[in-house]
Amino acid sequence: METLTSRKNETVRRLRLLGADKAYRREQGEYLCDGRKLLTEALQHGAEIGTVLWASEPLADVPAAAQVRVPQELLDYASPMKHPADVVFTVRIKEWPELPADRALVLETIQDPGNLGTILRTANALGMDAVVLTGDCADLYHPKTVRAAMGALFRQNVVELPREALRPWLDRQGLKLYGAALSPTAKDLRTAELRRCAVAIGSEGQGLSAELLAQCDGELIIPMRPGCESLNAAIAAAIILWELTK
Amino acid sequence: METLTSRKNETVRRLRLLGADKAYRREQGEYLCDGRKLLTEALQHGAEIGTVLWASEPLADVPAAAQVRVPQELLDYASPMKHPADVVFTVRIKEWPELPADRALVLETIQDPGNLGTILRTANALGMDAVVLTGDCADLYHPKTVRAAMGALFRQNVVELPREALRPWLDRQGLKLYGAALSPTAKDLRTAELRRCAVAIGSEGQGLSAELLAQCDGELIIPMRPGCESLNAAIAAAIILWELTK
Repeated sequence: METLTSRKNETVRRLRLLGADKAYRREQGEYLCDGRKLLTEALQHGAEIGTVLWASEPLADVPAAAQVRVPQELLDYASPMKHPADVVFTVRIKEWPELPADRALVLETIQDPGNLGTILRTANALGMDAVVLTGDCADLYHPKTVRAAMGALFRQNVVELPREALRPWLDRQGLKLYGAALSPTAKDLRTAELRRCAVAIGSEGQGLSAELLAQCDGELIIPMRPGCESLNAAIAAAIILWELTK
Repeated sequence: METLTSRKNETVRRLRLLGADKAYRREQGEYLCDGRKLLTEALQHGAEIGTVLWASEPLADVPAAAQVRVPQELLDYASPMKHPADVVFTVRIKEWPELPADRALVLETIQDPGNLGTILRTANALGMDAVVLTGDCADLYHPKTVRAAMGALFRQNVVELPREALRPWLDRQGLKLYGAALSPTAKDLRTAELRRCAVAIGSEGQGLSAELLAQCDGELIIPMRPGCESLNAAIAAAIILWELTK
């Protein structure tokens, strides 16, 4: 296995860019992952692994296009993490065909990548057919999204759509759309009929946009103790996903 | 209103220490909060406010023992936040009497203060009677706990107990204890009988300790898609809280 030692090395620079730059990730069709746990998940779920940078003992039989050894200092340089692991690797962005969905979660402008990753992890664990990203969400392949998703990116059907393409997608799937809202006219989540539908969740600060609310067939509210205004977006998503999967 | 300009000022140093040092917070019986939103919540819920440091226009009629103006630079110095607000203030730690609880959440060794704060916010919004902290949890008054809790600290009954005091507390309350676990013999959360009980959630990496599991009357599992190992601790807590409050 080759050993690299220079920050100027092309591979090291490319990985560093994949961690730092959304446009570069999309252009290259690859993203950066870190840690052995995620690598094991990637292998398990048949993710297409490109380059692996090892700062410690490599795992046997990793089917990667290229594997190199580097000093930890160089791995720290390539990784965007504050506390990098001893391995970073690239994964090819998976192109999903349009799959049939009975239940979907729509996320509009969830801007915190950690929150987005946590929601993807939850949606996947609770068996959601599709997660739709619309508006100005954090990048699906941001290193913090990837880390918080804990492998969900390798196995979850995620659809990225501009707002105007959402309704046509829902119509092709035959799904109703409910919007999570704090409006007093919204229906109590506990009593809503949630078969064959999608539920949309907006940003924590702003909620859903007027444009998205206009596409909804109805609104849902998670009942709360009086005086409490809202829940964290990932928490609201978890409760809604839990009800959707019943 | 007095204006302070020196980092050596006693008030500035005290606030900085309250943000940084758990032992000092407990010794002083005070903790640090930041931002106008939290201040408004504190006022609304009758929290006892000590000192307020303003780097911009003060709110009228804040019933604080002391209010001072400071340049933003000095507020940044006093605040432990990466992006400090324009006001920080101290709140006296509230001593709760032992209140009757029909439903309680037990948290063991939740080490991330942001996760702990998010769980408190959720527990409060969903109307939990008591949240019990045991084991080696993050500090309830860590600035990141306080920020993520979004005011829940001013109104949520939180009980801090060593593990050996948990069972006596539950017995006084007449509550059963269930442990959230990934064990194959655990009962499906959807079919569990959750009246008059407490549910314990452990650290994300380790789950509940053997010592705590030994105190449980049964175990619960959140059913997940095969291949998914676990949920974020705050997400698992949210789903369990949601079921508890039904």
